[in-house]
Amino acid sequence: MKTALDLSEAIAVVHRDMQAHLGQGRVADYIPALARVDPRRFGIAAATCDGQLVCAGDGAEPFSVQSISKVFTLTLALEKLGADLWRRVGREPSGSRFNSMVRLEQEHGVPRNPLINAGALVVTDALLDRGDTGTTIEGIADFLRLRSEDPSVDIDQEVARSEGDTGFLNASLANFLKASNNLHSDVADVLKVYFNQCALRMSCSQLARAGLYLTADGLDPWTGERVTTAVRARRINAIMMTCGHYDASGEFAFRVGLPGKSGVGGGILAIAPHRAAVAVWSPGLNAAGTSHVGSMALERLAQLMDWSVF
Amino acid sequence: MKTALDLSEAIAVVHRDMQAHLGQGRVADYIPALARVDPRRFGIAAATCDGQLVCAGDGAEPFSVQSISKVFTLTLALEKLGADLWRRVGREPSGSRFNSMVRLEQEHGVPRNPLINAGALVVTDALLDRGDTGTTIEGIADFLRLRSEDPSVDIDQEVARSEGDTGFLNASLANFLKASNNLHSDVADVLKVYFNQCALRMSCSQLARAGLYLTADGLDPWTGERVTTAVRARRINAIMMTCGHYDASGEFAFRVGLPGKSGVGGGILAIAPHRAAVAVWSPGLNAAGTSHVGSMALERLAQLMDWSVF
Amino acid sequence: MKTALDLSEAIAVVHRDMQAHLGQGRVADYIPALARVDPRRFGIAAATCDGQLVCAGDGAEPFSVQSISKVFTLTLALEKLGADLWRRVGREPSGSRFNSMVRLEQEHGVPRNPLINAGALVVTDALLDRGDTGTTIEGIADFLRLRSEDPSVDIDQEVARSEGDTGFLNASLANFLKASNNLHSDVADVLKVYFNQCALRMSCSQLARAGLYLTADGLDPWTGERVTTAVRARRINAIMMTCGHYDASGEFAFRVGLPGKSGVGGGILAIAPHRAAVAVWSPGLNAAGTSHVGSMALERLAQLMDWSVF
Amino acid sequence: MKTALDLSEAIAVVHRDMQAHLGQGRVADYIPALARVDPRRFGIAAATCDGQLVCAGDGAEPFSVQSISKVFTLTLALEKLGADLWRRVGREPSGSRFNSMVRLEQEHGVPRNPLINAGALVVTDALLDRGDTGTTIEGIADFLRLRSEDPSVDIDQEVARSEGDTGFLNASLANFLKASNNLHSDVADVLKVYFNQCALRMSCSQLARAGLYLTADGLDPWTGERVTTAVRARRINAIMMTCGHYDASGEFAFRVGLPGKSGVGGGILAIAPHRAAVAVWSPGLNAAGTSHVGSMALERLAQLMDWSVF
Repeated sequence: MKTALDLSEAIAVVHRDMQAHLGQGRVADYIPALARVDPRRFGIAAATCDGQLVCAGDGAEPFSVQSISKVFTLTLALEKLGADLWRRVGREPSGSRFNSMVRLEQEHGVPRNPLINAGALVVTDALLDRGDTGTTIEGIADFLRLRSEDPSVDIDQEVARSEGDTGFLNASLANFLKASNNLHSDVADVLKVYFNQCALRMSCSQLARAGLYLTADGLDPWTGERVTTAVRARRINAIMMTCGHYDASGEFAFRVGLPGKSGVGGGILAIAPHRAAVAVWSPGLNAAGTSHVGSMALERLAQLMDWSVF
Repeated sequence: MKTALDLSEAIAVVHRDMQAHLGQGRVADYIPALARVDPRRFGIAAATCDGQLVCAGDGAEPFSVQSISKVFTLTLALEKLGADLWRRVGREPSGSRFNSMVRLEQEHGVPRNPLINAGALVVTDALLDRGDTGTTIEGIADFLRLRSEDPSVDIDQEVARSEGDTGFLNASLANFLKASNNLHSDVADVLKVYFNQCALRMSCSQLARAGLYLTADGLDPWTGERVTTAVRARRINAIMMTCGHYDASGEFAFRVGLPGKSGVGGGILAIAPHRAAVAVWSPGLNAAGTSHVGSMALERLAQLMDWSVF
Repeated sequence: MKTALDLSEAIAVVHRDMQAHLGQGRVADYIPALARVDPRRFGIAAATCDGQLVCAGDGAEPFSVQSISKVFTLTLALEKLGADLWRRVGREPSGSRFNSMVRLEQEHGVPRNPLINAGALVVTDALLDRGDTGTTIEGIADFLRLRSEDPSVDIDQEVARSEGDTGFLNASLANFLKASNNLHSDVADVLKVYFNQCALRMSCSQLARAGLYLTADGLDPWTGERVTTAVRARRINAIMMTCGHYDASGEFAFRVGLPGKSGVGGGILAIAPHRAAVAVWSPGLNAAGTSHVGSMALERLAQLMDWSVF
Repeated sequence: MKTALDLSEAIAVVHRDMQAHLGQGRVADYIPALARVDPRRFGIAAATCDGQLVCAGDGAEPFSVQSISKVFTLTLALEKLGADLWRRVGREPSGSRFNSMVRLEQEHGVPRNPLINAGALVVTDALLDRGDTGTTIEGIADFLRLRSEDPSVDIDQEVARSEGDTGFLNASLANFLKASNNLHSDVADVLKVYFNQCALRMSCSQLARAGLYLTADGLDPWTGERVTTAVRARRINAIMMTCGHYDASGEFAFRVGLPGKSGVGGGILAIAPHRAAVAVWSPGLNAAGTSHVGSMALERLAQLMDWSVF
């Protein structure tokens, strides 16, 4: 086994090594607010169980978390519904693109897992159920403020509205779920909450801090608060490992060796159990919709710190 | 983090706890030789990186390894072809049953991963390429003899012949691969080798011993031999984690938290990186074709030893 | 070849023969206004090229035409766009249910044919393009009034609104088409027109009269007006033959031997080229969503009149 | 309605009109014996109910009938099994390519119709059931000799053997059917008979003559023999109309307006009910695997003779 570097040194090495790759990949262009982002931005931050927070590059710069939010709404929905949630959404890799209708129809409106869009819509509906959209959106944002210990975390209203204009595939999925009796609230309300949760702006530092409870069996290791049960935390990590990157989840599992979740804003949150939560940000995406430089950075960091679970 | 038990104690606890469940699940009945096995058999064995081998119940009784063999042929094929293998087979979960044709057609004859049947047939073809069937079968058996340090490992000829009689789905897959130019050898030869590798008889002790190289970055921790590179060992573990149990891989990842591979003979091999390789055997299968009691035993052992990677 | 009966006698025979079957099948219950219809209603009417109109039972009673409207909007869209329509919708049987998403995704948002829901939504969009919903809806209603020579043809506002409340599958399809750039107008506008065209109320007599142009190479045989070209009329008949009853089109082609289009309101329009247009109505549906008694009546009539094209 | 030409004149016109197109399309190259055929060959023949046989170009030259044979084996299997055949094969268009596995898996081994390869294999198995391959092959050949009133009809042994070497997709389908318990005989035997029936060599004149019973409700109009019942003849025509050209059946229905069946040897058999059976041959295929010039010739002839059923 290799001797692990000090975390600060490792982050510095990763930051330096990524300079040659900045600008690679393709920035998401389906939302104007995302398309405008400078493709050469790069941030990284790691929060460790034993209390360190190391940050480099644009690691303090907020960006659109997009699908990374699915990890946090899943946590909230499991707290709210417990195992009943699994009647409405599966826990298996889909082997499909993030927005595929095919599997959804084959499986009669029960999405394969909570990290594909259809599954995340069901999770959002579970949070919204009988509440109003405003309260639900604030509840999600508050959870992230609390977990990141930063009250400034907020939703980018322009991005939230852009999703509303262009999200026809999500609207197609949501209507299909509704037709399958797997949405309880109004389609428009579910989509509103979903587009708002995706539009949360957070920095790598905030995200890494917020993800810490997944490194420590559901306890926040800095405050001792119980965020979720150990079983649920492990369940979430397992789902991130097998399903976190759509049909490139296997590749990420191999290269990085950690549970992770990517967003089309270019962010990735990865969990090194019992060690650290790490967030990276670089807007250029690979073919599977995951940050190209971000994946490389996580692979390098996991290697330097010997964090792969395999 | 919980205090871990001593391994011998833990294995004893698991063995005792499983007694109440013996006979649960459904024994595979598509091959007479498998259908005859007593459903109440139960064996378990763990081989640790630091030199222990602990065994309980029927852990020394040989059984038909079936699909567990795919892990070892994958290792051999990666040694033979290196990364070129990935031109012929993917590395992503399929989200489908073990023998699905659908994905294979959609993806033009490139199987999703080497642990579904179609992918394993390509791997076998890679081993057979330009060799003859007898030599190839002996080469696979020899690898298992070497890795288990036991020259008595052998192939059950009755099972090998039974597969030949009833394996129409495998023949369908193999012919489809051939039509897609993704088999180089004759269909009948590939099937012959495949049915023979599945018919290997090994005990839990032998399997656990044989799997040790996957716990230690490709080195056999008992002999110091390099079996495969660290990168390939990690790749194999990642594939076992995301794809090892067909469309129940996500569930296994959560419950057990370890890379694993099951066979319809009722065996499961699991890898606790840097700790141990574990094999269990209990013939009754769950709906996904994985040993019912075997999964429970692994879940319990991983919990007692705090081996989950999540 | 059998000696054909006089049409009036044949209609009387069919009417009498169907009495024993009234009430069979299952009335569509997804819209309250349809669910309330008496399952024992039965009407039939035939309009011949040479000027007869024969009607029996409830043949003068208006009912909800539902998907039969797709034949008429297809005619209008072909007049408006000509062959350009075929860039946006195919002409092949889908082998799928009327509302399947699977094929639509596989074929990148180009529906297989204009008689499945997805295809009909594209056709409706083609009619709506740059117009407003009110004008478009009135245009469709006016076409039916003109073709049936009956200004009383109208839209059932309650049914149109019901579709709006429950049509989540159609909303899912429409949003998918929009995401695929195959709808030009707003999703809500397309759905509004679509739900209104489906809510047209017409009697068997009106429908049979309206369909006459399809029996005579696009000319209305009673007035001499050209409704569409001969090529388009033949195209529409061919599509009705191969695609008019979703995944039971082959069965209808065999049993009745005529191009036809069914609606979930229990109506069927069938075309006997160069002879007659026939409409039947009986609310009970078979498993494929086609009127059970209606199909039997058409089979019997085609047999008595020797009208099968085969 | 247009005034129809005399048949001989019409055939002469078609023959002349096609000269400009000879050589268009792409000759099937997966069997050497087919690949060698001169792409500029063109033959046509029509046999009428009232006793004419008109032939032009290479209309007397035998070619490989390939999938056209499926029409005749279907006739024989319906005579042998009656409606029981429909428990093993459907009667609906598949909306898929001729050799698709996807539908077959989705529908649990019951092929969608008897004119796709999977369905034709089931039909062949129905003929073979409990017989031997030689007798069954001779029985099929004898049926064609009888129907064409020509004892010289025979099987091209080189083509039959070529299919055997390269037919991996058919072997894949047959093994899948066997695994689904929808083949009673040995896979190899079914494939042997199937490859032999496809290798029948017949001329346009022989094929047109042989198809006459489908124009006349199952009676051979020249001899008065009953070949099949009226209901079965109509059933076969309906299946040819909706399924005869795989996923281009809708297009053929529109352009030609007649039930038809194409083969990759470049032949097409079309039925004009109560008028004539027509066969064409031109080796160049379109993208759907149907003779390009052959389709054009049939479209032109049907137009000149006003034979479209629509």
